[in-house]
Amino acid sequence: MTGQNQLAVDFLETCRARVDAELDRCIEQDSASGRLQEAMRYSVLGGGKRIRPALCLAAARALGQSGDQALIPACAVELVHAYSLIHDDLPAMDDDELRRGRPTTHIAFDEATAILAGDALQALAFGWLAEAPGLSESARLAMVQELAGASGHRGMVGGQAIDLESVGKTLALSQLETMHRHKTGALIEASVRIGAITAPSVSKQALASLTRYAKALGLAFQVQDDLLDIEGDTEVIGKPQGSDAARSKPTYPALLGVAGAREHLADLLETAQQSLREFGPEADPLRAMADYVVARTH
Amino acid sequence: MTGQNQLAVDFLETCRARVDAELDRCIEQDSASGRLQEAMRYSVLGGGKRIRPALCLAAARALGQSGDQALIPACAVELVHAYSLIHDDLPAMDDDELRRGRPTTHIAFDEATAILAGDALQALAFGWLAEAPGLSESARLAMVQELAGASGHRGMVGGQAIDLESVGKTLALSQLETMHRHKTGALIEASVRIGAITAPSVSKQALASLTRYAKALGLAFQVQDDLLDIEGDTEVIGKPQGSDAARSKPTYPALLGVAGAREHLADLLETAQQSLREFGPEADPLRAMADYVVARTH
Repeated sequence: MTGQNQLAVDFLETCRARVDAELDRCIEQDSASGRLQEAMRYSVLGGGKRIRPALCLAAARALGQSGDQALIPACAVELVHAYSLIHDDLPAMDDDELRRGRPTTHIAFDEATAILAGDALQALAFGWLAEAPGLSESARLAMVQELAGASGHRGMVGGQAIDLESVGKTLALSQLETMHRHKTGALIEASVRIGAITAPSVSKQALASLTRYAKALGLAFQVQDDLLDIEGDTEVIGKPQGSDAARSKPTYPALLGVAGAREHLADLLETAQQSLREFGPEADPLRAMADYVVARTH
Repeated sequence: MTGQNQLAVDFLETCRARVDAELDRCIEQDSASGRLQEAMRYSVLGGGKRIRPALCLAAARALGQSGDQALIPACAVELVHAYSLIHDDLPAMDDDELRRGRPTTHIAFDEATAILAGDALQALAFGWLAEAPGLSESARLAMVQELAGASGHRGMVGGQAIDLESVGKTLALSQLETMHRHKTGALIEASVRIGAITAPSVSKQALASLTRYAKALGLAFQVQDDLLDIEGDTEVIGKPQGSDAARSKPTYPALLGVAGAREHLADLLETAQQSLREFGPEADPLRAMADYVVARTH
């Protein structure tokens, strides 16, 4: 378990360095509007664990790929994640002034620029997938379809809308899961599936197994997030501790108790690991990532 | 000229009906969040002349296509236009409460829902292009690339950022044109090019001519918009007359005078029409659309 965790930490660190360098290279400084570009770079290059790109690269690895062809697709997924954070933090949404210990984009710039930076990053993500080097037209098109489905009203944005409507309400466990499957699960699932699509002729069965892994991991990620919000330390998690409870956001610990939430987390981890049974050691980074998500402290 | 105008009115009307029906059919009522879906439908189905989809269909027609295969791509372009209007109208941007004579989306719903509806419509547009029926993978991929480039920081969103930075400033004509080429021109150009891409094996030369047409038309559209803002009637144009001047937005009439702006408009129309010389009567709808844009009163 400690070995697995070290593998995950090392894999994440390697991915983070590659992804950060590629993002820095690809989001150029020149643009029609310098301020817009600056806000895009600020939002994307401002840290972050790059878990989604790492999952994308790990899925490609599980199917025997070096990951080179999955790098731009991995970065594209991160662009969507970054855009969703910018818009999520806006005064009309979560009204957050702090993200990863830095002022949020609308605080560092202004609201209008933050809205536009988010919009531009979304467009850029689709552009990168459509032009990803070294991949067939078929694969690039499949990735665009995957991202469009996962990030839109039937995926991430739909989940954010459910989230907004849920504040102050008591949700049943199934409703909470529906929200998270959309809000964070869909993009995590897309990260893994997009990584898999970069492998030529990935089998339907392998894709189904990886999807099962990603679905379980996506929920586990959220359960751990909720637990960290209760137990974590502001300095480490980068946002005020207990902020979900303060907003009466429905959470797993609120529904299941802390012990119940931990048990649920363990079950999800088990499902994720079981889904990888058919894969050999190439899937170790994916296995390690699952352990990492559960063990992480921020 | 009157005949051309009638042709444009008829063509626009036919396109509008087809596009409205298709949008109504394709943006389903079921979704994770009913309210989000409702806001998306409200924003997209709330009228509009559907000039961009009509240009897309007219470009396909100019290359001998019936337009059936261009219908979903045409609707995708309209989704991007609709999303940009929602975000443009937000309090942090233009702060408009009225659009096409109806409350803007954030007034009819709320700001958070408006932001999310815009985000979801953008994702949906890319999804529709990637899955457009009856087109090759190659064509679908080219359309996604086209839209991503035209709508992002090097296109429409970049133009909106320049626009925000220009309020209260005096721009030179070339700066004003740069802004409009991005803000409205890029998507109009993409509408025409995407329509052309739906034609199998469109020649480079034909695509270049259509692009030249679209570039001129895009600017003409904006010059006429500025003239209407001065001369139009609030009831007909659907927004308070003189609202650009009231915000000290730079305009063509402010830079060139009304007579100078009219002359510029005539030159752009001439360029647009000349660009279509190589095409036969199949390009008549494109020709008529150019005349229409210049002659329109709202």
